[in-house]
Amino acid sequence: MFDVAIIGAGPAGMSAAIYARRAGLSVAVFEGEMCGGQMILTPDVENYPGFTHISGAELSFSMSEQMKSLGAKLIESRVQAVKANEHYTVCTSDGDFESKTLIIANGAKRKRLGIAGEEKFSGRGVSYCAVCDGMFFKGKTVCVVGGGNTALEDAVYLAGICEKVYLIHRRDEFRAKGMLVEKVKAAENIEILYSAVPTEIFGDSRVKSLRVKDASGERDIETSAVFVAIGLVPENGIFEGLVSLADGYILASDDTHTSREGVFAAGDTRTKSLRQIITAAADGATAATEAEKYLHG
Amino acid sequence: MFDVAIIGAGPAGMSAAIYARRAGLSVAVFEGEMCGGQMILTPDVENYPGFTHISGAELSFSMSEQMKSLGAKLIESRVQAVKANEHYTVCTSDGDFESKTLIIANGAKRKRLGIAGEEKFSGRGVSYCAVCDGMFFKGKTVCVVGGGNTALEDAVYLAGICEKVYLIHRRDEFRAKGMLVEKVKAAENIEILYSAVPTEIFGDSRVKSLRVKDASGERDIETSAVFVAIGLVPENGIFEGLVSLADGYILASDDTHTSREGVFAAGDTRTKSLRQIITAAADGATAATEAEKYLHG
Repeated sequence: MFDVAIIGAGPAGMSAAIYARRAGLSVAVFEGEMCGGQMILTPDVENYPGFTHISGAELSFSMSEQMKSLGAKLIESRVQAVKANEHYTVCTSDGDFESKTLIIANGAKRKRLGIAGEEKFSGRGVSYCAVCDGMFFKGKTVCVVGGGNTALEDAVYLAGICEKVYLIHRRDEFRAKGMLVEKVKAAENIEILYSAVPTEIFGDSRVKSLRVKDASGERDIETSAVFVAIGLVPENGIFEGLVSLADGYILASDDTHTSREGVFAAGDTRTKSLRQIITAAADGATAATEAEKYLHG
Repeated sequence: MFDVAIIGAGPAGMSAAIYARRAGLSVAVFEGEMCGGQMILTPDVENYPGFTHISGAELSFSMSEQMKSLGAKLIESRVQAVKANEHYTVCTSDGDFESKTLIIANGAKRKRLGIAGEEKFSGRGVSYCAVCDGMFFKGKTVCVVGGGNTALEDAVYLAGICEKVYLIHRRDEFRAKGMLVEKVKAAENIEILYSAVPTEIFGDSRVKSLRVKDASGERDIETSAVFVAIGLVPENGIFEGLVSLADGYILASDDTHTSREGVFAAGDTRTKSLRQIITAAADGATAATEAEKYLHG
C-alpha cells in the first residue's frame, strides 16, 4: 500500500513525487514510456526559470534523477485501469498496486491530422516529434503543419538540420509567441504557407509529397517528411466514471482537486489556462501537498 | 513606455520577465535589493524540479542571468509608489517610469518576534537569515525561533556550522515537512524546546542570552545569536487603493488577475495556498501570459 500513486512521469508527476517524498510519504510513479512526457520531445527549453538553455531530454533526466534520489519508486508499466474501493487500485500489465491517494498526471498527446496517408506513412515520414526524427531528414525538404508554439519551435529546429522547411498553417496568422514568430519569419529556409490545409499524403515505401489546398486550389509539395504539430489531446478514457471530465480533460480546480476526494490532477491532463513545463511542475507540488493534507486529515 | 513593469525580482518576477520577453514585450523589472527575493536566503534548495541540489543564491543568479539575456531591463531602485492614470507610473528614488501593465511580484518578508531587545540587537546577533549570518557564529551556540519549514531548514543549516543549536517552538509539534522534522530530530547538536516562547533578548554590545518561558517557568539560555524564522508578512502598503488586499496580501485569482484590469499579482505577495519557489515561478509565467493577452486585446 502506497500513500500516493502518481500516474505519469512528466514534469507534473515528477514534481509531485519530489514533493510527496519530501513530505515523508511513500510514492509509486507509473510511467509506460520514458520519464519526461511531452517535455522530452522539446529540443530547446529556454523558458524554464533557472536554465537559460537546456534540452527537454536533459531536463527530463534531471527531474527523474531527483525524484529517484529521494526514494520515489518508478514502476515502468502502462496503467490499464484504476478502481476505487476503500483505497485505489492501479491495474497495470505487471500487476495491481494499492494506494491511499491518486495523482493523475498523465499529460496529453499530440493530435492527428486525420487525412489520407497519415496513418500509412506514420513512422515512414509522418512524425509527431521533430526532435526525435528530425535528423533522419538532414539536408532534405520537410513540412511542418501547425501554427502554435510547438509548430514554430519545430520549424526553427528543423531549419537548422534540413535544406528547406515548409510551415503550413490553416489561418492567416500564428497563435505562437511573438519572439518565435519573428524567428520563423527571419529564417531563410522556412517558407510559410498561410491559409493552407493539408489534404493527403503520398509516397511509396516512404513519404514523397503532401497535397495542400488553399484559396488558389491544390498543389503537391515534394517533401520527405510531414511533422504534425496541431495541438494536444488528453487520454483520460480510463478515468471516466472515477472523476468528472470536461472536453476530455480532468475537471480540476487550481488546487488540483478533482470531483473525487483523494484523487488529484496535475499538469496538462487537467482543465487549466496555461500548459507549460513550469506550470505543470507547480501543479505537481500543489497536488502532493494537497494529498499530504488529505492523508493527515 | 514599457509594455510590462514588474515590481520585484524574486522567482515570480524573474519568471514573469522571461515569459514576457519571449512574448516580444518590453519589460522593466524593479528591484531595490538583490535579485532572488526570499529565495536568496535559502541555503539548500532541493525541491525545485530540475535541480537535485542548488543553493538559493545560485538559483537566483541563474534566473537573473536568464532574464537579462532575454533583454529584460533591470532597474535597481526601490519602488516608492505606483500611480494609475491612463497607464501606470512606477515612482522610484531614481525617477518615474511608465508602463502599460503592471505585475506585482514583491514577495513577502520575514516576521519580527516583537520582544524586548530584538530591535536593539538586530544585526548584532539577531538575524532573519541563517545563510547570510550563520558563519559569524561558527563553533558557537545559537537559537532558532520557529516551527515551520524555514525554521527547521535554518536549524539544520546552523547545526552544520555551530557547536549547538536550540530550536524554540511555541507549539508541541512542528508545522514543517515530515522529512525535515526527522532530520532535525536526528541531529545530535540540535536541542528542541517545545511549547516555549522567547520573551526577551539580553546582551552588551552583542547578544548574550535569550529568555524563554515555558510551563515550568522562565530560563535564560546563553547564546551568541537568535535566528528568527516565524513566518512571512507581505509589504503591500503602497498598493492600497490601487488593488484590493486581503490580510495584507494582494487579492488575486490563480490566473493572477487582481481587482484592477491590467494589474497582475504573482508569487508570495498574493493570496494563494502554497508558497514555494516553483509555484511562484509558475505564477510569473501565468502573469506574463495574462499581461500579453490584455495588451493584445
